[in-house]
Amino acid sequence: MLLKIACAQPEITAGRPDLNTEKILQIIKEAAHNGADILFLPECAVPGYLIGDLWEQTSFIEDCEAYGQDIINATADYDICVVFGNIALDRSKVNEDGRVRKYNAAFAAYRGKALGNGRLPYNFVIKHSLPNYREFDDSRYFYSLAQLAAELNTTPEALTAPVMLNIKGQSVKLGMMLCEDGWTENYHFNVPQTLARGGADILCNISCSPFTLNKNAKRHRLFGAQAKTAGLPLVYCNNTGIQNNGKNIFTYDGCSCVYNANGILAAEAAAYDETILYFNFDTETKNINAETMPPASADETSAIYKAVRYGTEKFLQQLGIGKMVVGLSGGIDSAVTAALYVDILGPQNVLLVNMPGRYNSGLTKDMAQKTAQALKANYMVVPITDSVENTYNQLTQTPVVNYNGGGQFNLSVSPYVMENIQARDRGARILAGVAAAFGGAFSCNSNKTEITIGYATFYGDICGAVAPIGDLWKHDVYALGRYLNSKVFTHPVIPEEIFTMRPSAELSPEQTVGNGGDPLVYPYHDRLFALFIESWRKTSPADILRWYSEGTLAGHLNCPQQLIDETFKDAAGFIADLERWWKLFCGLAVAKRIQAPPVISISRRAYGYDHREAQLNPYFSREYYKLKNELLNK
Amino acid sequence: MLLKIACAQPEITAGRPDLNTEKILQIIKEAAHNGADILFLPECAVPGYLIGDLWEQTSFIEDCEAYGQDIINATADYDICVVFGNIALDRSKVNEDGRVRKYNAAFAAYRGKALGNGRLPYNFVIKHSLPNYREFDDSRYFYSLAQLAAELNTTPEALTAPVMLNIKGQSVKLGMMLCEDGWTENYHFNVPQTLARGGADILCNISCSPFTLNKNAKRHRLFGAQAKTAGLPLVYCNNTGIQNNGKNIFTYDGCSCVYNANGILAAEAAAYDETILYFNFDTETKNINAETMPPASADETSAIYKAVRYGTEKFLQQLGIGKMVVGLSGGIDSAVTAALYVDILGPQNVLLVNMPGRYNSGLTKDMAQKTAQALKANYMVVPITDSVENTYNQLTQTPVVNYNGGGQFNLSVSPYVMENIQARDRGARILAGVAAAFGGAFSCNSNKTEITIGYATFYGDICGAVAPIGDLWKHDVYALGRYLNSKVFTHPVIPEEIFTMRPSAELSPEQTVGNGGDPLVYPYHDRLFALFIESWRKTSPADILRWYSEGTLAGHLNCPQQLIDETFKDAAGFIADLERWWKLFCGLAVAKRIQAPPVISISRRAYGYDHREAQLNPYFSREYYKLKNELLNK
Repeated sequence: MLLKIACAQPEITAGRPDLNTEKILQIIKEAAHNGADILFLPECAVPGYLIGDLWEQTSFIEDCEAYGQDIINATADYDICVVFGNIALDRSKVNEDGRVRKYNAAFAAYRGKALGNGRLPYNFVIKHSLPNYREFDDSRYFYSLAQLAAELNTTPEALTAPVMLNIKGQSVKLGMMLCEDGWTENYHFNVPQTLARGGADILCNISCSPFTLNKNAKRHRLFGAQAKTAGLPLVYCNNTGIQNNGKNIFTYDGCSCVYNANGILAAEAAAYDETILYFNFDTETKNINAETMPPASADETSAIYKAVRYGTEKFLQQLGIGKMVVGLSGGIDSAVTAALYVDILGPQNVLLVNMPGRYNSGLTKDMAQKTAQALKANYMVVPITDSVENTYNQLTQTPVVNYNGGGQFNLSVSPYVMENIQARDRGARILAGVAAAFGGAFSCNSNKTEITIGYATFYGDICGAVAPIGDLWKHDVYALGRYLNSKVFTHPVIPEEIFTMRPSAELSPEQTVGNGGDPLVYPYHDRLFALFIESWRKTSPADILRWYSEGTLAGHLNCPQQLIDETFKDAAGFIADLERWWKLFCGLAVAKRIQAPPVISISRRAYGYDHREAQLNPYFSREYYKLKNELLNK
Repeated sequence: MLLKIACAQPEITAGRPDLNTEKILQIIKEAAHNGADILFLPECAVPGYLIGDLWEQTSFIEDCEAYGQDIINATADYDICVVFGNIALDRSKVNEDGRVRKYNAAFAAYRGKALGNGRLPYNFVIKHSLPNYREFDDSRYFYSLAQLAAELNTTPEALTAPVMLNIKGQSVKLGMMLCEDGWTENYHFNVPQTLARGGADILCNISCSPFTLNKNAKRHRLFGAQAKTAGLPLVYCNNTGIQNNGKNIFTYDGCSCVYNANGILAAEAAAYDETILYFNFDTETKNINAETMPPASADETSAIYKAVRYGTEKFLQQLGIGKMVVGLSGGIDSAVTAALYVDILGPQNVLLVNMPGRYNSGLTKDMAQKTAQALKANYMVVPITDSVENTYNQLTQTPVVNYNGGGQFNLSVSPYVMENIQARDRGARILAGVAAAFGGAFSCNSNKTEITIGYATFYGDICGAVAPIGDLWKHDVYALGRYLNSKVFTHPVIPEEIFTMRPSAELSPEQTVGNGGDPLVYPYHDRLFALFIESWRKTSPADILRWYSEGTLAGHLNCPQQLIDETFKDAAGFIADLERWWKLFCGLAVAKRIQAPPVISISRRAYGYDHREAQLNPYFSREYYKLKNELLNK
């Protein structure tokens, strides 16, 4: 039998079952009209997935359940089987937190009825593997198939079976699973192969899986291998749109696809495209026939830009922000951010503000203006010199009365304090005020390198509505700048000097473009910091020192040995640098991240609730002190 | 046989196995010296518990394992059995995230060896019940006994047994469990009763359990009942100190205790006291003999003050903050906060700053000064009038160049924008600058009522190092003010007028003390907002409206019906009010909380990672619209 299969990747709005259901009903109509026999929709298509503790609100989840019933009912009107994800409740049981029993469930609805797999006491299928890493909190909200099996004194295997669909006078067995169920590497129960052994004709994984750089390549390997091992085609259905956990804004690229029984990608929907992928499935031969070929995969910078632009655009739309204000220093971070907003909102809706103080060079002021001109944006120059001086005078000249010992005294303000006063004058006084007056919000231009070590001022530059480049290392920001010039604007909106001058905060006489820039050697520190946060086993100072001692550090950093040799004259210098940044990374920078804006998240580990942090004091292990001692006494 | 039992409640430093181990070794020495046969120490006593994703750092957890071995080794030197919590690793297996297998484990060490229960393939006991609600993320880090049982194709029951200790020539069976294992309400496997059936002589629950208002009373009920059912004494061992998850600072009150075999509290250590509780246990009769009686439980306000004071003090110590700056408006929140810091740091280390603008009344300025005088603190008055005017002028008079269409224009600044400019001038310009110049940090004085609806300005008043009253409703703040006057300072440091005048933000002509205060009826809204955030099933607008329709709302709010009747003239007014605050609660207030400082957390649900939130658009369910329609068309 030949079945036409539709795989939709709607833009899901988290927390809006009303909007999502309306959209789903429209898609059912369209897919049925196009002759599809089976329609796949993503995991949690009704409620959305990243809704935080809204899962605890009984009223909300009951609403989602009712909308799900509407979808099931709607299948009575068409000859199409609809597979979709929703929350499922069992009011007779509780979760381990005492709240009503909730499952992350997949429904297969046909002719107005939800089918069920005949093994579970429900007419839906339950997610077995609940991810509890990165941004995922599945066990916080959902009861797993593993838990249910234990509760029922049975095994997950005994509860797992394909869903039998009788369509066109024949039966098809749908091997349904949810997202993590397909990522079988570290679970002792293998959902897809159990479904295959159970006689499935086709495997299908419905997901709500955010974009992560290079994740799709890994999925193609893993899911392709599952399809091949099972000897069955595997459909992957994922939504588009954005969802957030408060601190991290994730983009969902869709990229719904089908792997044939040999594990080869047979058809794939375009990234971030709210579309429906159609293909034919021959139930006898298990062949997949798709008219379109999978699109070529994008290079890394273009993938990053696509995600950052999509995430930022959708987030601003969600917040109802149509105008953005960007502090434009004349450096690379603000230039890239400014160009991004102009690309999203159009130049007329972007106001760029240069805020020179005592230490800003003619060069950067000139660069700021040139960037604004090239971007055709709105531009203003608001100097901070007078205001900063007034603050200095007010703080130092206002007497402090001592009601304890009596008398009074005056505060003194150090040059370091003056640096932060400048930064806060720009962020909290000018940008926040200008944004409100302009009728929009202002941007946080911090990059991941700065955020790692808190090289930013509280309520100064680490503030704003969103940090679009907050998950990009400094070298990624430069690459994005090149990309904006060459591919997005196709002319140099970011002047060449911005790429070639040394980056500097320009907050003190020592910190100027000409006179000494940022205290970081970006090609080295970008990579070092990436080990701290992005490596799976969380590289520690002890690891770094061990590799440095062994002479293998360059390999771990993926940089030339020469870079390390030229940056540090000896082990003492290397260690001092490592400790300086480690202490900031684990110390004050954590406090700053706690109060930082949400970050558009694209890497394998972004700051926020993706990477959870307590405010602790920096720690060095015994091995670290041993290695340090050995190195310094060599 | 009579055994002397010691139950220690050390102040654990999260993320510092070196310091914790040093302390534990000292306690072992002391308890052995005092003749104890068994010493109990808390869950995760070596690593601490709330350390965020530091659990993922292999180097750190291996260090904790090595320190744990030091503790085990140390028992060779004494005739004492030490029960303590630590992370345990199995390098031959992985967690479901692919990282090394980690258990939240209890060790019983005696004569240099860890004993084990003879059922598990390890020489330690594994936590069965992993909490994944509120601040708990156990499944993110630990593999549970339930998961291990499934992996080994067996049951948790088969792996659960007491640990046999041969001491003084006889054997004692220790029924060891970890924290949540004792909170059996919603788990289908009951750890304490399984241990009892397995022949335990005594049950012991080692915990790392933060203070929550009224939680100890519930624990006494539950754990007492477990002891009684088992017919065995139950030891509860909990640490002191503070731990945080970035957004929430929790206090650990210890309150280690023992319930006798009848379920009666027989002895209890004082709250927040880093002490060792001793008692005797007769292994034949199961009798518990303690010399001291459990202390009387504190009234609610005194319990709140104790927790808030302890949490704030320890947090400042941890951050190395010895001086605090508080913006003192003349209202209740800042007065209470100021008094708190004076109580903690002494008046010489507190600088109170009154920052009058155009709309501040003589009354509040006077109140601020009187409070500072009564507290004997340092005090300064830094007016914001000129600076705010300068900002207004700079924003409105600086031309904006339009590089798109050409020409230029000027921004206009509305009165609403001016309100926020004032707030930011106070917080980000003055307080942040004064704090740095004074050599300390500044405080966030926001209360829970304001935080619920975002009645605060970004980078204005919802900023600072910590929010000590951020988990207190407005009525709690008033009660704390009374308590500070009568019990802490024993004279009115907070002037009477502050209690009696109507609270106001004083940011506009409409918002003044004389002319109209905050847009909230605190006795009503405090209770309404508490239902939104603190009720277990997360009360929704549909619930509220249903109760309002049914006439049961006053009961749910625990307030007189008259309050509702007087506050709203009709259903339309009631609904408009509900929607106004619900939209803010789910909307802009979330954005503000994402960037808010950490909160000293004492309630059953505090803002932060205790209550996780995505930035979503406010949602009203179908039931809500139906009820609203019915009410408005009555």
